[in-house]
Amino acid sequence: MKLKNDLILKAAKGENIDRTPVWLMRQAGRILPEYRKIRNSLSGFKELVETPYLAAEVTIQPVDILNVDAAIIFSDILVIPEAMGLQYEMVEKKGPYFPKTVSNLTDINNLNTSNIEDRLSYVFEAIKITKEQLSGRVPLIGFAGAPWTILAYMIEGQGSKTFSRAKSFLYREPKLAHLLLDKITQTTIKYLKLQIEAGADLIQVFDSWAGILSPEYYKEFGMKYIDEICKAVCDVPTTIFSKGAFFALDQMKNLNCNTIGLDWTMDAGNAVNIFKNSKTLQGNLDPCVLYGDFKLVETKTKEMLDKFVNSRHIANLGHGVYPDTDPEKVKCFIETVKSY
Amino acid sequence: MKLKNDLILKAAKGENIDRTPVWLMRQAGRILPEYRKIRNSLSGFKELVETPYLAAEVTIQPVDILNVDAAIIFSDILVIPEAMGLQYEMVEKKGPYFPKTVSNLTDINNLNTSNIEDRLSYVFEAIKITKEQLSGRVPLIGFAGAPWTILAYMIEGQGSKTFSRAKSFLYREPKLAHLLLDKITQTTIKYLKLQIEAGADLIQVFDSWAGILSPEYYKEFGMKYIDEICKAVCDVPTTIFSKGAFFALDQMKNLNCNTIGLDWTMDAGNAVNIFKNSKTLQGNLDPCVLYGDFKLVETKTKEMLDKFVNSRHIANLGHGVYPDTDPEKVKCFIETVKSY
Repeated sequence: MKLKNDLILKAAKGENIDRTPVWLMRQAGRILPEYRKIRNSLSGFKELVETPYLAAEVTIQPVDILNVDAAIIFSDILVIPEAMGLQYEMVEKKGPYFPKTVSNLTDINNLNTSNIEDRLSYVFEAIKITKEQLSGRVPLIGFAGAPWTILAYMIEGQGSKTFSRAKSFLYREPKLAHLLLDKITQTTIKYLKLQIEAGADLIQVFDSWAGILSPEYYKEFGMKYIDEICKAVCDVPTTIFSKGAFFALDQMKNLNCNTIGLDWTMDAGNAVNIFKNSKTLQGNLDPCVLYGDFKLVETKTKEMLDKFVNSRHIANLGHGVYPDTDPEKVKCFIETVKSY
Repeated sequence: MKLKNDLILKAAKGENIDRTPVWLMRQAGRILPEYRKIRNSLSGFKELVETPYLAAEVTIQPVDILNVDAAIIFSDILVIPEAMGLQYEMVEKKGPYFPKTVSNLTDINNLNTSNIEDRLSYVFEAIKITKEQLSGRVPLIGFAGAPWTILAYMIEGQGSKTFSRAKSFLYREPKLAHLLLDKITQTTIKYLKLQIEAGADLIQVFDSWAGILSPEYYKEFGMKYIDEICKAVCDVPTTIFSKGAFFALDQMKNLNCNTIGLDWTMDAGNAVNIFKNSKTLQGNLDPCVLYGDFKLVETKTKEMLDKFVNSRHIANLGHGVYPDTDPEKVKCFIETVKSY
């Protein structure tokens, strides 16, 4: 089906567009009362992720309510470790928890990388339903976690301030780390290709814990595998968002991807300078701006847009929208971009 | 009393030295069984902070046991908000908790900025005892939190992944934020001067949450007050450590301070390039390297030193040493620096 609004795809490819497209990371869920109503009627977060028609419903909510230029499939980066054999629980107010983690070669050998199409069929089903129900209104973004971030959860078993167990695994067992990263990468490539097959129009890879590695280690254990993913997944535009990895922007120039996500600590002028319109930049308003009043949201959004005025740009926050954000402020952000 | 080892002071001033001095952030406490023995005999962390002869004892332990080139007074950055009227509790495994926080003008007006000499007398007493017991073996470092980090705790009341309440306060109430930052700054200046009077040979300011602000906001709400502190506190060498604020390195060139702390994500070559020996650089080994074997600690420490070889440098980790680090690995790090 032909897309009625393909601004984000054109922006990603560097084609001419009338205005900057806009969407928000974590827009599917969290902030909308309409989402919370569905979420609260279920046993938990995972039931929603694993029930395709409901995942599709909350994926489309922000398109209807917030008027964003893209939908992003409601899911979680941790479906990959789960599909590989590590079940996770989403503990209310605490985050993910893996009862079983990876710590040695046997654990790595026991990971399952086959039958992703069956094990994650609920994601592909949700994508198909969403695409059907969107009827071409806006493109649908598929996504996955970057291999380093997935490894971090597999080793650590939960969130952490320092992820020191995961990091020390890189230092102590570099060969095992590469083996594990390779397995995650191959599985992720299959997963992303299947998302595209199911209908995803654009792919984003989230490296949430990129910023806790040293520049050398991120190059060796992070970028290497992102590079492989970018080379393998090229049927639709791809976006790489390495949160906190300001030191890696230079390396990212050579990635076979269309768009680079910027967090709010990354200076727009600096990024514009590095990429010189060779890639589209996505971001990067501080999500905390949306706690301000409407005037502030408008001013800061315009200031952000000013910085990208001669650049390939997709407007977004520099991080996922925070759960306690007022949806009216989100609308103000979106409308400010649209009428800029 | 004349110092027998003044390497760190000379390094801070950019004077000629025979070898690079070395110490660790958080060396006083955490990793040493000798520390834990004392700590476990007490009601809690705060009793240790507030008992001068014991604080002095754990301050000197790493000089005796690890052979570092400087002692750092055992204390906490949160003694300042407490002295200003906000009591805190240190909750085991969770971190600090303030039952009372700041949210409006009345709260700010109620903060007490007088009698720091009495309210924090236990710190000055601990410094005096430490200096006496050190008998000039190595210099003693005094410290404080930077105003933005202290404000963050005062608003938030506890640690946070995003510090979104504190950040949104800057967006929503910039005038109140400046009023509060000014009060914290004036109190901190008094506090640091009193530490120097009591015997501190060098001062370090820790901006632990610098890295969560956008570059513009850090300039306005962070650096502005660090600059004031640097201008006011100039009787001994000063070090500024703005963790995560890679974007602020350029601004820091103009600070009236001697040393800039680098975390492990900051590329040494880049920092060397920015400061061109106008300041001493301190850091920046990834603390997770110390989870590796002795060979790895040695190799990575040497690689780190190589990067600073023609630069004014004080060796350190890029963050406080992690609590579960083997003291033998810390010794290996220190010995590698000393014999480089």
